[in-house]
Amino acid sequence: MDYMDLAIIEAEKAALRGEVPIGAVVVDSRTGEVLARAGNRTEEDNDPTAHAELVALRLAARHIGSPRLPYCDLYVTLEPCTMCATAISFARIRRLYFGAYDPKGGGVDHGAQFYNQSTCHHRPDVYGGLRENECGLLLRSFFQEKRA
Amino acid sequence: MDYMDLAIIEAEKAALRGEVPIGAVVVDSRTGEVLARAGNRTEEDNDPTAHAELVALRLAARHIGSPRLPYCDLYVTLEPCTMCATAISFARIRRLYFGAYDPKGGGVDHGAQFYNQSTCHHRPDVYGGLRENECGLLLRSFFQEKRA
Repeated sequence: MDYMDLAIIEAEKAALRGEVPIGAVVVDSRTGEVLARAGNRTEEDNDPTAHAELVALRLAARHIGSPRLPYCDLYVTLEPCTMCATAISFARIRRLYFGAYDPKGGGVDHGAQFYNQSTCHHRPDVYGGLRENECGLLLRSFFQEKRA
Repeated sequence: MDYMDLAIIEAEKAALRGEVPIGAVVVDSRTGEVLARAGNRTEEDNDPTAHAELVALRLAARHIGSPRLPYCDLYVTLEPCTMCATAISFARIRRLYFGAYDPKGGGVDHGAQFYNQSTCHHRPDVYGGLRENECGLLLRSFFQEKRA
C-alpha cells in the first residue's frame, strides 16, 4: 500500500460522512512516517477552511511542533485549490503529489497558479495526475449519487 | 470604537505573543454582532494556516454552525494573503475591509489576485486602505524591534 492509497481511503471515509471525497496524507520524507492523514471536513466541522490538505497540514505541524514542514511530502487525491496550494507553500512542503486535475477549482495547474507568482516564496516540487482516474472516479461517483 | 479598532487590538495582542501583528474581526452585518476576533497564531499554535483571518473565519463559522457566512463582513489590519483571500471567498463573506496594503504577500490587490480569477465563484466587496497608516505602522514597528 502506498501513500496515495492512504489518501484515497481518507477520501472514501469523507464520502461516508457526506463530505466531498478528497483525502490527504503528510509524510516525513526522511523516515517514511505518516505524520497526518485527513479527509475533507467542511460540513461536519462547520469550517470553510477544513479541506483535506489544510486539516492534514495542521495535524502534521502540531505533531512535529513546528509550523514549517520542510522535509515533508503531501499526497492528495485532487489538485489543491488556491487556498490549499498557498498553505502548502507556507508549510514549506517539499513535494506535492496529487491525483485528479481540477480545472474548475484547482489552483496549481489552473486558476490563480500561486506557485507561478513572484509573491510565492516557496514552491514545492509538483507531481500531478497520480492515480488520476481512480481519484477522479471517486468524485464523479459522489456527485452522480447526489444528483440521483 | 469601530470594528477596525477591534482588529488593531487583536494585532497588538498578537505582537505581545511574539506573532506578526495582524488582527481580524468577523461581524454579522445584520445585527452588528462581533462573531469572532483573532490575531495571528502561526508560531504559538504551530500552525502554518493560523493567520488572523483564517482563525477568525473558523471561529465565526463554528459560532453560527455553518461553513458559510453570507451575511458577514471581515475586518483585517493587512491585505489578506492568497490563502486567506481564497478562504474568505469560500466562506461567502459579504464585505472585506482591510488596512495596510501588502505588495509582497498580499493576494487581493497584489500577487495571485484570486478574486479576479474565473475560478473564483464568490467575490466579496473589497475596501482597502482603511486606517492604512496605523495598521502599517504596527507591522513596521514590530519588524524594526525584531531587527534591533
